[in-house]
Amino acid sequence: MAKPIEIVPIEGIGEVVPDDDVARILWEAIAAGPTSLVDGDIVVVTHKIVSKAEGRIVQAESEAEYRQAVEDEAVAIIRRRGELVIAQTSHGFICANAGVDRSNIDGDRIVLLPERPDRSAATIKSRLENFSGCTIAVIISDTFGRPWRRGLTDVAIGVAGMAPIQDLRGTTDMHGRVLEVSEIAIVDEIASAADLAMGKSTGIPAAIVRGVTWVPTSGRAAELVRPASEDMFR
Amino acid sequence: MAKPIEIVPIEGIGEVVPDDDVARILWEAIAAGPTSLVDGDIVVVTHKIVSKAEGRIVQAESEAEYRQAVEDEAVAIIRRRGELVIAQTSHGFICANAGVDRSNIDGDRIVLLPERPDRSAATIKSRLENFSGCTIAVIISDTFGRPWRRGLTDVAIGVAGMAPIQDLRGTTDMHGRVLEVSEIAIVDEIASAADLAMGKSTGIPAAIVRGVTWVPTSGRAAELVRPASEDMFR
Repeated sequence: MAKPIEIVPIEGIGEVVPDDDVARILWEAIAAGPTSLVDGDIVVVTHKIVSKAEGRIVQAESEAEYRQAVEDEAVAIIRRRGELVIAQTSHGFICANAGVDRSNIDGDRIVLLPERPDRSAATIKSRLENFSGCTIAVIISDTFGRPWRRGLTDVAIGVAGMAPIQDLRGTTDMHGRVLEVSEIAIVDEIASAADLAMGKSTGIPAAIVRGVTWVPTSGRAAELVRPASEDMFR
Repeated sequence: MAKPIEIVPIEGIGEVVPDDDVARILWEAIAAGPTSLVDGDIVVVTHKIVSKAEGRIVQAESEAEYRQAVEDEAVAIIRRRGELVIAQTSHGFICANAGVDRSNIDGDRIVLLPERPDRSAATIKSRLENFSGCTIAVIISDTFGRPWRRGLTDVAIGVAGMAPIQDLRGTTDMHGRVLEVSEIAIVDEIASAADLAMGKSTGIPAAIVRGVTWVPTSGRAAELVRPASEDMFR
């Protein structure tokens, strides 16, 4: 019988400030919660607490300062319409306002994306594995828009411990036909699934996703970036 | 305490053929499975079994016939590169090959998208509610690519019973600041989450997503289509 998937919100994580130890905060919140970690768990963390712990916060008291931070974070502007800027970040991600975010931070400070989210994910994974004795994967998520479809969804911007893309090329369907849909961005699906248990206004910044079939291996969210030469929409 | 989310695959659904009663097939498979429906469940069904039941199948013995079917389904070609066609469908969705799919169907037949997937979802919802006595929502999913990011994810192409976008505009975060990320495409996140329990090669075409917070209301996947006038990437 196929396994159900379970998504358990990690509650009790308070305000995170620069130099906080995110892995320890996660571990203590998990320990105080209804379930510990088990082998095969995927811990999804919204980037905001990672960015805050890493000090990726800047003062921006005016709209102009916010706009300047967006320009500073952008390595390329893909589209611009009024105040909306779709920009490429240093990581290669293409998103609104180069990932610079004003919500869920107090006062006039804004949060940037982690400088190296794959490295951040690897650190959290390694430390949570030491705390728990389990083999896990870690995904750092953010909320991105997309062309053509209204609304935003959570995607992976940092990954450690698993391949970001589930490559089904060469496998066959029930009729023995080679699968046409062959490369599933499974970490993006997991980030979206985790968001269902977190919610934007509840202050829950992390969740455990349990029951997904995956193989421990190296993997980085950077692999999700489609090279410009293959991209028809820049 | 926040609720965990559970995603239960619906197993035991065999090959679906034209004029099959998808709602009854789903209900019988659920009844034979580990859990029945409860109020608030969201049943996610991959479009392929809906399309097959609705007879949205055409013969295509050659590559040329397949290509013709893609052109027939497309109402506008957005980009074309070699064999890859990114097209707008009659529903307004923009996706590879206008949603025409060759996998998970036997022989030389190909599967088109349902003609009116929101109507299909409404029919399935209504009948499953009659069978179960529960208030549920139904999502019909397909697997789409996207610009800028490699890999594909499952999204909603048909919706019944819930708003496709969770509108957080006007709500505030933990600091009392109005949320910047305000419109979450929650049905796309649910479709992606369900895919984690289904898998492309296992032949499981449906899942129950349980524990998501949503309000019963009318809603259609058509609302997810961003109007061309607001879209910067056509």
